Amino acid sequence: MARKILVVGGVAGGASAAARLRRHSEEDQIIVFEKGPNVSFSNCCLPYHLSGVIEKAEDLVLMTPELFKSQYNIDVRINNEVVSIDREAKEVKIKNLDTGKDYTETYDKLVLSPGGKPIVPPIPGLEKINHFTIRNVVDIDRIAKAIKEKDVKKISVIGAGFIGIETVENLKEAGYEVTLIEAMPQILRIFDYDMVQTLHKELYDQGVNLILDDKVTAFDTRMIHLESGRKVDADVVIMAIGVSPETDLAKQAGLEIGKTGAMKVDQNFRTVDQDIYAVGDAIEVYSYLFDDYFKLPLAGPAQKQARSVADHINGQYVDNRGYIGSSILKVFDYNAASTGLTCGFIKNSGLKVDYDCVRIIPGDKVGLMPSSKNMHFKLIYEKPTGKILGAQAIGKGNVDKRIDVIATVIKFNGTINDLKDLELCYAPPFGTAKDVVNFAGYVAINLMHDDFRQVNVYDVRPLVEDGAAIFDVREENEYELSHLKGAVNIPLSQLRDRIDEFPKDKPIYLHCRSGQRSYNACLALQNRGFKNVYNISGGFMGISFFEFYNDKVTGREPILTGYNFD
Amino acid sequence: MARKILVVGGVAGGASAAARLRRHSEEDQIIVFEKGPNVSFSNCCLPYHLSGVIEKAEDLVLMTPELFKSQYNIDVRINNEVVSIDREAKEVKIKNLDTGKDYTETYDKLVLSPGGKPIVPPIPGLEKINHFTIRNVVDIDRIAKAIKEKDVKKISVIGAGFIGIETVENLKEAGYEVTLIEAMPQILRIFDYDMVQTLHKELYDQGVNLILDDKVTAFDTRMIHLESGRKVDADVVIMAIGVSPETDLAKQAGLEIGKTGAMKVDQNFRTVDQDIYAVGDAIEVYSYLFDDYFKLPLAGPAQKQARSVADHINGQYVDNRGYIGSSILKVFDYNAASTGLTCGFIKNSGLKVDYDCVRIIPGDKVGLMPSSKNMHFKLIYEKPTGKILGAQAIGKGNVDKRIDVIATVIKFNGTINDLKDLELCYAPPFGTAKDVVNFAGYVAINLMHDDFRQVNVYDVRPLVEDGAAIFDVREENEYELSHLKGAVNIPLSQLRDRIDEFPKDKPIYLHCRSGQRSYNACLALQNRGFKNVYNISGGFMGISFFEFYNDKVTGREPILTGYNFD
Repeated sequence: MARKILVVGGVAGGASAAARLRRHSEEDQIIVFEKGPNVSFSNCCLPYHLSGVIEKAEDLVLMTPELFKSQYNIDVRINNEVVSIDREAKEVKIKNLDTGKDYTETYDKLVLSPGGKPIVPPIPGLEKINHFTIRNVVDIDRIAKAIKEKDVKKISVIGAGFIGIETVENLKEAGYEVTLIEAMPQILRIFDYDMVQTLHKELYDQGVNLILDDKVTAFDTRMIHLESGRKVDADVVIMAIGVSPETDLAKQAGLEIGKTGAMKVDQNFRTVDQDIYAVGDAIEVYSYLFDDYFKLPLAGPAQKQARSVADHINGQYVDNRGYIGSSILKVFDYNAASTGLTCGFIKNSGLKVDYDCVRIIPGDKVGLMPSSKNMHFKLIYEKPTGKILGAQAIGKGNVDKRIDVIATVIKFNGTINDLKDLELCYAPPFGTAKDVVNFAGYVAINLMHDDFRQVNVYDVRPLVEDGAAIFDVREENEYELSHLKGAVNIPLSQLRDRIDEFPKDKPIYLHCRSGQRSYNACLALQNRGFKNVYNISGGFMGISFFEFYNDKVTGREPILTGYNFD
Repeated sequence: MARKILVVGGVAGGASAAARLRRHSEEDQIIVFEKGPNVSFSNCCLPYHLSGVIEKAEDLVLMTPELFKSQYNIDVRINNEVVSIDREAKEVKIKNLDTGKDYTETYDKLVLSPGGKPIVPPIPGLEKINHFTIRNVVDIDRIAKAIKEKDVKKISVIGAGFIGIETVENLKEAGYEVTLIEAMPQILRIFDYDMVQTLHKELYDQGVNLILDDKVTAFDTRMIHLESGRKVDADVVIMAIGVSPETDLAKQAGLEIGKTGAMKVDQNFRTVDQDIYAVGDAIEVYSYLFDDYFKLPLAGPAQKQARSVADHINGQYVDNRGYIGSSILKVFDYNAASTGLTCGFIKNSGLKVDYDCVRIIPGDKVGLMPSSKNMHFKLIYEKPTGKILGAQAIGKGNVDKRIDVIATVIKFNGTINDLKDLELCYAPPFGTAKDVVNFAGYVAINLMHDDFRQVNVYDVRPLVEDGAAIFDVREENEYELSHLKGAVNIPLSQLRDRIDEFPKDKPIYLHCRSGQRSYNACLALQNRGFKNVYNISGGFMGISFFEFYNDKVTGREPILTGYNFD
């Protein structure tokens, strides 16, 4: 029997649901309502129009209502906003934004995919500054046109999440003076503080004026006032503070809102009303890794949820395994990816989990190959099980595939023991015989087995300041170039002959360039009777990246005589 | 108690074993014997010296005996060949190739990592032609020098496996006229015949003289004679037919050889002699996917086996899960990767497994991004379980990460249902919201669920020749550019209005550009009562790639009015 199915929202979730619904049935009447002028546009690509990587704003629109009609026999109504739901009557009220007139449509099933709306806090003086948010093609087109005005040189982006960073990059590449203002002490909370210093450095190196740990308190004409007292000139301001789920319609209809502020749905992405489903940025999802719900406003999950909903409406089972969250972005020359939990999240959310992490900086390819790039890699795992909880990778090379592999391992409840055995593709132009993922697994197993102990890059400054016994096992020429203040140079190649120079009565901290030679040195010392030996994970390169940005912006006394970034 | 451990072979397996052995113990005496002049060189990188990607031959050598001594206190003896093992006396005889003198060393434990040697069949006239094999730095240096002679213009490579193809690519990039001769009807048996046509086309497009399905019967001065009667001029010949495991030492010592011709080892990589281990190209490994042993001469497995052996010698358990085999190579502008079983292997090896495959050609990134490239992707899975058996990906973009993900899924016994839920990294510069892997999973589920049926690209020529009812659902302008001879054009956008033009009494075959629109068309027809509908997987693009190379080299009548490769 033919049904009438209404879909609210025509972007990632809504468009996918409608197409899948049609594949299930030729008879069903399917209507999609989109309050904006475009359906099925690539919201993830929006920032790339600002630099011209995607030349024309209209290219961002992938499907038209006409194509939906001819190819799918789906009735798509743009500039039509669903303003209320009458669950009793199974009817929605729609405002046609072109005519201003309201009308109603009944439904058998209703799918809500309203998305999220950019957060704009009520900061005093907002009306005095030329400001924008980014949600759709109209927004990005408007910004692209506004910044082409001849008096626009300085642009400030407020908020250093995905959209903020991508916008900064594209504006910078278009030649503007760009300031990025973030209230937290770091950008992109999908990365831990130690990892993200690499990206802080990249923004600094690319000439972005990065302001962290400072809040906007007021706007004035072409001026932003910050909590610190600092003032920033800005011809244009882009608010990229984040998105909040569009829940007005759900609230009006008496549908449940979860404690995250997003809509609550069951395992079938169905609301408390058995005929109303919801997907995408408007809902909260269940975590695969901890026993709670969280918001995950990403295009991939939205599309997959939409498919599940279309399947469930047509009598198929839904296989909802919960979410781990995987994401990636380009930050100028760096690629940065993350999956699962961060150490920061575990600490701040009060999760009761015993964990440890591995931090390595291997090459993404065989070092001999000219295209080889270092990769900062962090693996987080549970103790005592070795279960993988998350990973982060930042580098100029192939970081995405390593995080994709870890994301896959997490979905199978894999452990550090599983990592070592993975057979990943290897040839010199693509990777290393022992892949980064295998290598991280080995290091984690060594740590779990107490083969060696480590300290992290953020422990190094206190150690240097306390005059701890730090030994640099790189070769003399490397040490001479730059080293930790107070570190003693005993190259691995001289270690066995100079064994008496190591103190027996206090902890010994060893490092080399990235941590591999010092790991060998740790084991040699331990096997010769030294009990209190620590490897500085990430080595001198890790320390250099960790210290650089804060050294530059605070003007503090560096703990190194110079930096080494490769 | 200090032991004396001897390692035979100082490349991937041997060098890794020695270093790990040292980390376990400072006291053990460790001696590595290498019959060549170099240890620890990158054999996988050898071909890249021929094009100058790796400029100097000596750069291929990663460690020297001096460094092994100073950094690891390991005694590495190059130009020292172990010629026999006396298991009773626990002693090996070594020939010092510099002095010609023999000497002996006793051992507590012996690790064999002798590698594989290039196969050179006894073809008549071999002595008349300037021919080479590639095994080590000396070989590649010798070739690099030989081809610089001024009369060398034409080079033939015999054998189209990894080394053969990589050598062809690097020689071509260095400006030579290159012929590649392969006895089988296709290159690279890690790919199925349908997939590998893309690479045959690439070799053709890059100007390589590719000769398939033809055997070398004799050599003459600057001339190769083939079974077909064809003759090929060659100033230099490189024999890249394959490697056979170095088992002379094992045979002499009475160690077991498996039916593959490689050494047999137990779950701990130990031979029948409890004090002798073996790793790398010389051994056969157990399959994770079928109940038998096979040869897997790759650097990654060798290094991991070496680590396991060092661990077992030091009392740690070995976790040997068997192997699936994952590999990748660059073929000019294409990246080509494979993991697990191919359809060809399943058929030819007589494995009793019911299976099906998905063949899709999605973009590796969001189509809007200028760097987006099509990817030919094949997923092979077991029926009725849906267990993933293998995958192949060929394209100009990021193929490796998709195969790495599938390799990971296989190691967890994952199924097509697992694929759809993977949360992989997505941002426009890196992938698509619904990743290739998710997409392949969805298609496989649809097939398994009998939502639609498919035929493969190799079925199309017989269908065209039989005058089957083939419908092209692309738009008219696409059809006009090029199409299958005899195919009727009914664009998806007109399908519902022209439904009467589809025959009710015979099978209907549908295709579009890559298979997505025709999949929608299949479902629309089925939902309107048509029972006998098939999607041509891979679409017109897949057919174009499949037909092109054989059309060109055989001069046969094409089944298309023209090709469409993107």
